[in-house]
Amino acid sequence: MVSAPRLLPGKPIDPTSAAFLLAETRNQPMHVGGLQLFELPEDAGPNYVREMYEKMRDVEEIAPLFLKHPYRSVRTGGQLVWRPDEQFDIEHHVRHSALPEPGRVRELLDLCGRLHSTRLAWERPLWEAHVIEGLADGRVALYTKIHHGLVDGISAMRLLQKVLSTDPDRRNMQAMWSAEAVRSRRSRKEEDHDNDPGAIAAAVSGATAAVVGAAAAATEVAAGAMSGAADVVVDAAAGAADAARGLSIPDLPVDVMRTALAISADAAGMPGALVRTLRRGIRNETSAVSLYAPRTIFNQKITGSRRFAAQDWPIERMRAIGKASNTTINDVVLAMCSGAIRKYLTDLDALPDTSLVAMVPVGLKAKESHVASADGGNAVGAVMVKMATDLDDPERRLKTIHASMKDGKDALSSMTPSQIMAMSAIGMAPAIVPGLLRMQGVVRPPFNLIISNVPGPRSTHYWNGARLAGTYPLSIPINGMALNITCTSYDGDMGFGLTGCRRTVPHLQRLLTFLDEELGALEKAAGVN
Amino acid sequence: MVSAPRLLPGKPIDPTSAAFLLAETRNQPMHVGGLQLFELPEDAGPNYVREMYEKMRDVEEIAPLFLKHPYRSVRTGGQLVWRPDEQFDIEHHVRHSALPEPGRVRELLDLCGRLHSTRLAWERPLWEAHVIEGLADGRVALYTKIHHGLVDGISAMRLLQKVLSTDPDRRNMQAMWSAEAVRSRRSRKEEDHDNDPGAIAAAVSGATAAVVGAAAAATEVAAGAMSGAADVVVDAAAGAADAARGLSIPDLPVDVMRTALAISADAAGMPGALVRTLRRGIRNETSAVSLYAPRTIFNQKITGSRRFAAQDWPIERMRAIGKASNTTINDVVLAMCSGAIRKYLTDLDALPDTSLVAMVPVGLKAKESHVASADGGNAVGAVMVKMATDLDDPERRLKTIHASMKDGKDALSSMTPSQIMAMSAIGMAPAIVPGLLRMQGVVRPPFNLIISNVPGPRSTHYWNGARLAGTYPLSIPINGMALNITCTSYDGDMGFGLTGCRRTVPHLQRLLTFLDEELGALEKAAGVN
Repeated sequence: MVSAPRLLPGKPIDPTSAAFLLAETRNQPMHVGGLQLFELPEDAGPNYVREMYEKMRDVEEIAPLFLKHPYRSVRTGGQLVWRPDEQFDIEHHVRHSALPEPGRVRELLDLCGRLHSTRLAWERPLWEAHVIEGLADGRVALYTKIHHGLVDGISAMRLLQKVLSTDPDRRNMQAMWSAEAVRSRRSRKEEDHDNDPGAIAAAVSGATAAVVGAAAAATEVAAGAMSGAADVVVDAAAGAADAARGLSIPDLPVDVMRTALAISADAAGMPGALVRTLRRGIRNETSAVSLYAPRTIFNQKITGSRRFAAQDWPIERMRAIGKASNTTINDVVLAMCSGAIRKYLTDLDALPDTSLVAMVPVGLKAKESHVASADGGNAVGAVMVKMATDLDDPERRLKTIHASMKDGKDALSSMTPSQIMAMSAIGMAPAIVPGLLRMQGVVRPPFNLIISNVPGPRSTHYWNGARLAGTYPLSIPINGMALNITCTSYDGDMGFGLTGCRRTVPHLQRLLTFLDEELGALEKAAGVN
Repeated sequence: MVSAPRLLPGKPIDPTSAAFLLAETRNQPMHVGGLQLFELPEDAGPNYVREMYEKMRDVEEIAPLFLKHPYRSVRTGGQLVWRPDEQFDIEHHVRHSALPEPGRVRELLDLCGRLHSTRLAWERPLWEAHVIEGLADGRVALYTKIHHGLVDGISAMRLLQKVLSTDPDRRNMQAMWSAEAVRSRRSRKEEDHDNDPGAIAAAVSGATAAVVGAAAAATEVAAGAMSGAADVVVDAAAGAADAARGLSIPDLPVDVMRTALAISADAAGMPGALVRTLRRGIRNETSAVSLYAPRTIFNQKITGSRRFAAQDWPIERMRAIGKASNTTINDVVLAMCSGAIRKYLTDLDALPDTSLVAMVPVGLKAKESHVASADGGNAVGAVMVKMATDLDDPERRLKTIHASMKDGKDALSSMTPSQIMAMSAIGMAPAIVPGLLRMQGVVRPPFNLIISNVPGPRSTHYWNGARLAGTYPLSIPINGMALNITCTSYDGDMGFGLTGCRRTVPHLQRLLTFLDEELGALEKAAGVN
């Protein structure tokens, strides 16, 4: 059959990245995205946007990260390797697009949703950037898409931000894919002392990796467990099977599973235990590992069609509510989401009687968690937050969320890192496993959606004089988890990015209106403004 | 290993279509395209283009042809089958796009080149249509892309035209992918008695099928012949291997080869003979099967990047030249191409001393060829035309082309259908086989490029009141054949569509200028205008 690998024509892909690559199916593309809005400088000429595009296209040297693509064949002994694209075509990756009339934000979000729906082909490096003109307000947009197997999403956002400057007069700035920009990122110190999202971002994305890694691992588990029913396995493992079909790679699943679940040596027995746990459907009542989420429309098998909605609101408004109600900005963000989702589901006559549960990745200060991440900075955990969508009163919802969040954080802070990671994995895996085993409707979801809030830079940033006016993340809906909300702060605003399966989550845009209304309701309840 | 196929979950794909699917690689996508320009009706409202897009998107029922996608797995016993896309998403296939400023034809061609560069993913039905606004002159463009495995290119153009009407007041017309349009195409008679391109189109595309089918067959031949050198095979058969890897499908190659080469039972021994012929490098001096083409920059391995150039000129100008010089419109088209290519290669200091040879598919009247196609109408053959690029004088070039064309047609008309098809296959296969066997520079190309001229409707056509102002085909460059010129006539104009590999054929747009200059030079030489 497959002969033993000789010299690999490429660099082996680490198991975590491999997990993301293999977990991908048509319905579940594994790339993250970023939408950035720029205001043109006052002295911008009529060809400014074209020149901006050309500047991004005509980089002298592309960083290796943006040149490699995954490859796998008999020659590599079935192993996934990275190899440089020998016919790299920058015009395939960096594109100049325009919006149809009337060029509202709506047309921009439509285009981003469409671009975010399409899988990146393995035959080329796994990224795209689109310079988009045609917004009626004269701003220019940059949509960037990068595979999670190449770099995690929040790090990608960070890469994008790192090529920016706080200096509006700086010019000759590079695109993030240029080798020069990567070198200068490595060599120079932070320009400003903003709240650096780096450590927590890396940690949060570790948690996300665990989610998706678990999906991939579960695929393999499913394949093993159900080997008697080949048809089911072929369907269940669709994407991975497409890639792997016919190749026998006996040692991949174990690697993928161990690394993706971030199981350290002392917890290596976890995956089996995890699967048994799931099978028994045991309910755990710890708030951090809640398995009591109701079924909702969000927790179905998804399609590959995406809708994207984004908007920002002044952080000051959230801070004022938090101050008046003795809650945090993050609590207010969750309360906005809770109220908006309550209205959204009510309109669809699909609101469950019991509260929805959100999985919220949280950063933990090293001293609180008595552990340190690789950066020596923060560790991360996932808290299951009761969203109080069963309560009509905005103020009570906010209080309930605050209490649930505090419980979860307290529980996390007393755990060891491997306990945290294992617990997070337990919390997450069931969301994915049922989908893979075609078990929707049999097992309840452990939570209903993921809401992340990642701090970004506080000060105004520029790219070659163009002011960054807003930045919004596009995330990865997965089977059983059709809606993802990721927020990121920047320059006094909180940007909400809602990414959903277009079929499973209809009229996604409505959530923006409801978020706005809910912010107003919370202000009223808190007696501010 | 692979168990015997049980019930196939889909309809088996015929060998010709399979050949196109398997011949596809990243560098050699196998889809054809069409660019159509429409003028808006006088009463068009401000939302006309959006409504046009929505009309195309919101069809009630999609025709089965546009719903199926190729699929292959252990479940199908390794066989390629068509199966309906159960999650068909019209918004993935029909898109509303816009051009960046300043919205010239140049920006439109850039976009078409970009869209034409990307492979269609097998996981969805193999087509896309883009309604493109933003042309400064107020016209709207429709770029359509469809896989050759689904329908041949000229038939695709024909499908597009068949949904049009000669009646500017007709409304409620359907997009070509609607089931209703397909049904009405089948049931209604031709609306006008224009020179119907149907029969010849079908025949010409049969010839194209033979070219690409031969490529696929050659891939399999190469795989068989060189089974001792697995590495080479893996690279040579890149795309096909990606799809087929690990599956053993012993009976596919023979089917593919027989059907794709259109070899009838009495000529079933041809493929082996063909390959032996190639290996010996035998030169045949018949003008119709010339193997004396010089090496040019067009005859290299190509990349997956495309550039598209298109323009039209009044047929009346060509007719006047033909009349004055006793040549045909088609001769004048070839002479324009010849002069333009001569200038283009001269500028690049890459003009060979001997004349380039073009492969020109020709339709033959049934009575001339004493054979009938399935339609009972025309048969088709391929003529190798000496382009006279070694001659400086436009008039002498035109005369030489005319004579070479006549020789070739005469030779064809005395042949039987299977001889014609076999000869065409012999003529074409060597262009592809060397690339697959990594033999560039070893074997000379049998011809340098393909120039097709397909007649289209003579009268003005409309879609829901929008006048079709121009129509241009995008074709398939293949390894060793980096430039393709396809012309189509419509409403008094001859539209030239030039599709090239962006790297192998630099500055493709220059050819448009040279075509224009050459038309003027031919007029001057003929003493018209």
